[in-house]
Amino acid sequence: MPDIAWQKLGDYLQETQVLGSIHSTLYWDQNTSMPINGAKWRGDQLSFLARSLHARQSSERFEELLHEAKDEFQRNYGLKPLVSKEFNEKKRNLELLTQELHRQKRLDPDLITQLATAQTNGYSLWQQARRENDFQCFAPALRYLISLRQEQAKQLDEPRSCWETLAQPFEPDLTIQRLNELFTPLRKRLPELISKYCLAKDINQQKWDLEEKSQQDLCERLLQEWGRNPQVTSIARSPHPFSITLGPQDFRLTTRVVRGQPLSCFLATAHEWGHSLYEQGLPSQSHQWFAWPLGQATSMAVHESQSLFWENRVARSRAFSYRFWKYFAEAGAPLTCGHDLWRAMNPLTPGLNRVEADELSYGLHILIRTELEIAFLEEGLEVNDIPSEWNKKYKELLGVVPSNDSEGCLQDVHWSEGSFGYFPSYLIGHLISAQLSEAMIEGLANDGVQGEDPIGECITNASESKLLSWLRREVHHYGRQLNAEQLVEKVTKKPLSSRAFLTYLENKLEQMTSTP
Amino acid sequence: MPDIAWQKLGDYLQETQVLGSIHSTLYWDQNTSMPINGAKWRGDQLSFLARSLHARQSSERFEELLHEAKDEFQRNYGLKPLVSKEFNEKKRNLELLTQELHRQKRLDPDLITQLATAQTNGYSLWQQARRENDFQCFAPALRYLISLRQEQAKQLDEPRSCWETLAQPFEPDLTIQRLNELFTPLRKRLPELISKYCLAKDINQQKWDLEEKSQQDLCERLLQEWGRNPQVTSIARSPHPFSITLGPQDFRLTTRVVRGQPLSCFLATAHEWGHSLYEQGLPSQSHQWFAWPLGQATSMAVHESQSLFWENRVARSRAFSYRFWKYFAEAGAPLTCGHDLWRAMNPLTPGLNRVEADELSYGLHILIRTELEIAFLEEGLEVNDIPSEWNKKYKELLGVVPSNDSEGCLQDVHWSEGSFGYFPSYLIGHLISAQLSEAMIEGLANDGVQGEDPIGECITNASESKLLSWLRREVHHYGRQLNAEQLVEKVTKKPLSSRAFLTYLENKLEQMTSTP
Repeated sequence: MPDIAWQKLGDYLQETQVLGSIHSTLYWDQNTSMPINGAKWRGDQLSFLARSLHARQSSERFEELLHEAKDEFQRNYGLKPLVSKEFNEKKRNLELLTQELHRQKRLDPDLITQLATAQTNGYSLWQQARRENDFQCFAPALRYLISLRQEQAKQLDEPRSCWETLAQPFEPDLTIQRLNELFTPLRKRLPELISKYCLAKDINQQKWDLEEKSQQDLCERLLQEWGRNPQVTSIARSPHPFSITLGPQDFRLTTRVVRGQPLSCFLATAHEWGHSLYEQGLPSQSHQWFAWPLGQATSMAVHESQSLFWENRVARSRAFSYRFWKYFAEAGAPLTCGHDLWRAMNPLTPGLNRVEADELSYGLHILIRTELEIAFLEEGLEVNDIPSEWNKKYKELLGVVPSNDSEGCLQDVHWSEGSFGYFPSYLIGHLISAQLSEAMIEGLANDGVQGEDPIGECITNASESKLLSWLRREVHHYGRQLNAEQLVEKVTKKPLSSRAFLTYLENKLEQMTSTP
Repeated sequence: MPDIAWQKLGDYLQETQVLGSIHSTLYWDQNTSMPINGAKWRGDQLSFLARSLHARQSSERFEELLHEAKDEFQRNYGLKPLVSKEFNEKKRNLELLTQELHRQKRLDPDLITQLATAQTNGYSLWQQARRENDFQCFAPALRYLISLRQEQAKQLDEPRSCWETLAQPFEPDLTIQRLNELFTPLRKRLPELISKYCLAKDINQQKWDLEEKSQQDLCERLLQEWGRNPQVTSIARSPHPFSITLGPQDFRLTTRVVRGQPLSCFLATAHEWGHSLYEQGLPSQSHQWFAWPLGQATSMAVHESQSLFWENRVARSRAFSYRFWKYFAEAGAPLTCGHDLWRAMNPLTPGLNRVEADELSYGLHILIRTELEIAFLEEGLEVNDIPSEWNKKYKELLGVVPSNDSEGCLQDVHWSEGSFGYFPSYLIGHLISAQLSEAMIEGLANDGVQGEDPIGECITNASESKLLSWLRREVHHYGRQLNAEQLVEKVTKKPLSSRAFLTYLENKLEQMTSTP
């Protein structure tokens, strides 16, 4: 059974991926090295690449190659009674490629160019607007991006609403109805928890900071203990931390140092490293599938579940603070015991900023953004009304009001790049992380890890490699074989819900506020 | 007189330049951020871009557009008696484009791909060979690169020798005969100067070093005083300092800190900044000609003349040391006066390393490489014999012998990337810098700068901006309107020779060794 057509299709995909990864490299450079005035030309480069990518992904040649590979697949497997792993993987690859081809073919190349330009432009105006606290300077660009995205959803012509259509690349198969099922319990319970555990207690957090160099050293120690291999991972600084994969052996992440927030860089490092570990665990390595859909991340919520696991379940855990506090103290932090660091890692104070939010209030930041996105994409919310709606929702859900738009609705980059439908992934990621952690606890116990809290046990003993092994074995290697909810159900034997997350939160809050 | 065809050709060139600058961005990233195991995939990316670039530069569409633009040019200007600046510029652009098209069309696309792969491979093997001091590990890759380049020269089929053909992209119109005319006086005179001024004197340079952070601060101060605008320039670290332009408003440079060589980073910064100033002064800005040949650097020797001017004529001058020594002393350097720094800036000790060489011995490093290149490309020198030939020539010309190949013939990156014909540009750059400086001295005097040494005067008064203005006005803005020798003759009213350089050297050496 020769697989000539399969190989040819693979070569084509490989070249598409080469082109796509060039686009990613330019994005990395833009955020880590490019001088600000390079933005216009960079926009031309990105727009050229977006056009070329779209042309490749919607070309007759691609359609032909895909068609031939399907025929060959039919010939080779059609009569076989046994359904093998290889069969399933190939079948899924072909399905995903067919879906992607149809999507790309429906899009007008002019729209691709317009979008690329509008994104570069939107990003640069958003930067200015945020700097100058002037929402009006960004509003026309946002309005234009919304109209282009609405047009895109129309062209894609899927049996979904506009917002749902745009959310597909991030969260395949997600519907607004399902989102409501998942989020409604949170919208009710999170504010109750906040008022019980935060507003009721007077937490006098001591103000302190750490030298930039010390923060860097702590981050380096963290990644070293978590098994970073510098031959395949690079680290740089950027205004917003992110993680990105530029080749099968080329993983990058960025952090930033925020003055007055000595743990920001450390937690961002943990978070971005979690993203990177997922990418590093995808089936690209063993199966040479960097170019095939199956080798890719299945959804941004699963991605977030991995980053949040390492940030919240590990770095923000009590066990971790008890192990690491002395390094912080050596670096100059005014800490006298592990508990001090644990409290500092979990401030439990609802604030205005999503990125710096704790686990408890984080979800509310997402609910607000999700509701607003759906409103301006589908329900006619005017762009000019976003700031006041934003502030109203913050007052209602978090009890705080931004004093200006820079710390309000201008704080996030996503909308400036026309990324609508992305935000819920962050919160679904919390739910997935919690539910996977429950399964991990069982799994580790079966693997022979002792104690009531096997995750904490591994952290205490500096054997986080056991946590990673479990994730590699149970979660990472599927790639896009399963979508997010299928993956969760496969691993945890239960449908995804908000239960595990709320249980985890309540336990942690109880522990946190009752220990001395 | 509409110039529709001209505009269309411009649009095409613009897109070619977008693609070319993407290639450069990947090169930048490779040297500043990429983890080492990213090399293979990066090679695939660069090879894909090289292929795409070659396809664009040799396409029928390009030929057609060029043809139409020429016709239009004939129609619009053919009957005009007056030869305007615009006429000259357009004519030159068309000539250069025609030449480039013919070159690209003669090259087999397969060769382009093979070369791109061989370059990536050669670079990575060279890194290993140098690390492990094992020339044999690099030798087969070098042999292969030589054969591919020889094949390239054959395909280009120019009325020049193999080495000359390969040197054209760096030094248009250069011949080996002309090279001999320029270099022969140096081959004779430089060793005489070395034995007179260096070997005869016992110069006991004090050993000292500076903290990395202090070196960084000194470099920052330097560039700030030399008018750096951070909105258009970025700085990073790389194993080998370089300067590169990634867009009309996007200039990058790298430096490195070498332990035990406290001035290395500082002088590299001055050098790379000189390159960048030339690029920043090219006519791309005012004429929107980033995409046209005329907006580009005319030759690597002219490029080097600019970097060497800022490194040697300015940063290594007495005036500069007298002004800057106190900052070095504040940073911890054991200096008690300007003269101390001046001596440290000009060690006058022939060594094994080209990059760290002083002005006096630098030329000899180049002579050796040039002779070897011509020998292995044209005269049958076997790759295996390069190390012994290298060492023999070092003994003869510099009186030193490398103790191993890593500090000998493996020290430079150029050959590992198949860049043959590049080295002479460095030395021609010294000659051009010296000859332009003589003209600058006259020019500054006419501009009203007082004193016997107007360049030193400007440096003493921290008005290097006057030097830059002169270079902008007299040198930079020509772009490729004139080739290197034409440019020198235009500015200095004399043909290029080694006289100015030797005169400058002898004066400086005399001054240096006679002052207390």
